[in-house]
Amino acid sequence: MRVSELSARTGVSVATIKYYRREGLLPEGVRSAATQATYDDAHVSRLRVIRALIESGASIAETRTVLDTLDRPPARPQELLGAAHAAITPSVEGDADLSAAERLVGGLGWQPGSCDPYVLSGVARALETLDRADFQVSDDLMAVYLDAIRRIARAEIAGVPADPDEAVRYVVLGSVLIEPLLLALRRVAEQVASVERFAGAAGSATMSVE
Amino acid sequence: MRVSELSARTGVSVATIKYYRREGLLPEGVRSAATQATYDDAHVSRLRVIRALIESGASIAETRTVLDTLDRPPARPQELLGAAHAAITPSVEGDADLSAAERLVGGLGWQPGSCDPYVLSGVARALETLDRADFQVSDDLMAVYLDAIRRIARAEIAGVPADPDEAVRYVVLGSVLIEPLLLALRRVAEQVASVERFAGAAGSATMSVE
Repeated sequence: MRVSELSARTGVSVATIKYYRREGLLPEGVRSAATQATYDDAHVSRLRVIRALIESGASIAETRTVLDTLDRPPARPQELLGAAHAAITPSVEGDADLSAAERLVGGLGWQPGSCDPYVLSGVARALETLDRADFQVSDDLMAVYLDAIRRIARAEIAGVPADPDEAVRYVVLGSVLIEPLLLALRRVAEQVASVERFAGAAGSATMSVE
Repeated sequence: MRVSELSARTGVSVATIKYYRREGLLPEGVRSAATQATYDDAHVSRLRVIRALIESGASIAETRTVLDTLDRPPARPQELLGAAHAAITPSVEGDADLSAAERLVGGLGWQPGSCDPYVLSGVARALETLDRADFQVSDDLMAVYLDAIRRIARAEIAGVPADPDEAVRYVVLGSVLIEPLLLALRRVAEQVASVERFAGAAGSATMSVE
């Protein structure tokens, strides 16, 4: 197909397609004339992935790293997630204090060496941010977080397809694309729970806690 | 205290403090001389909140909206979350198709009118992104997501303090600051679950699914 049809099928403008091509995200089409190239379904599929990653908040550089991981997956399945997470985790300067994070993620079944250090330092930085804002999370609430996240991760990993190519796609994209869904669902669920708890409480001294 | 001490106590540079003041995020100190102002513990606390919001990825404008909500909270507790979510949700152009999102969040106890429309459209956009990337989430996995997120939201809302001022702070900040923690915990849990499932599977045709 011509670039105009590629644009029509993906909803990505011709100018943006050319930009992705210049940035090396999208392979060249097969040149059919000096000023014309032909694209196929692989380009359509690739372009949809690029668009989804960018819409999920990935930068051009992060998108390139994710695509590289899709193109050249690591040999061992348990390294896939590390590669996916590395692609979408901004590098940070400075060392985070990992001890509080290590204690916390013990509740996820974590043991030394069972996840990449920079993933652990993501938890450490999140804890430091809460701490600096003087925001306390009770032990009970933290236990609920850990339990819920563990359920999510186990179901996700149990669902990784056995076919290696499919597994790569599932792990790399799922790790990035599901984040906005989970955050959006949490906001809906919070509002629903808030109405459940507080509805009718306005002007009243009593609040019903379910 | 002088601005230099405010800087030392919060780890925020004097130049950045002055920038936040110009942007209206931080109130002026009490002027003690033509070129000098005095700050108190309220400034320290405010500055910690600003820093936490910015580190969580909020822009200056979003931070200002969150602070405005803290300063002038809505009268009804169930409107707090809406105000907090509005402050940190980027406005988007175009209408999302809400029907798929509505069906999905029915699993969270959602009913028409029980959450703000733009929060629902956040779910709709996340679903569209998955769809465009041709990324399928199985019904079983989606059910696990809904159940886990519902547990999280109920525990969060059950823990909202009864004191109104404390409730505002808890709801507004918790809604923003907990997101990076949940995402970071998910990555750790995925890697741990991945090792549980795939460890020893390298080079072997069989994979043990727990």
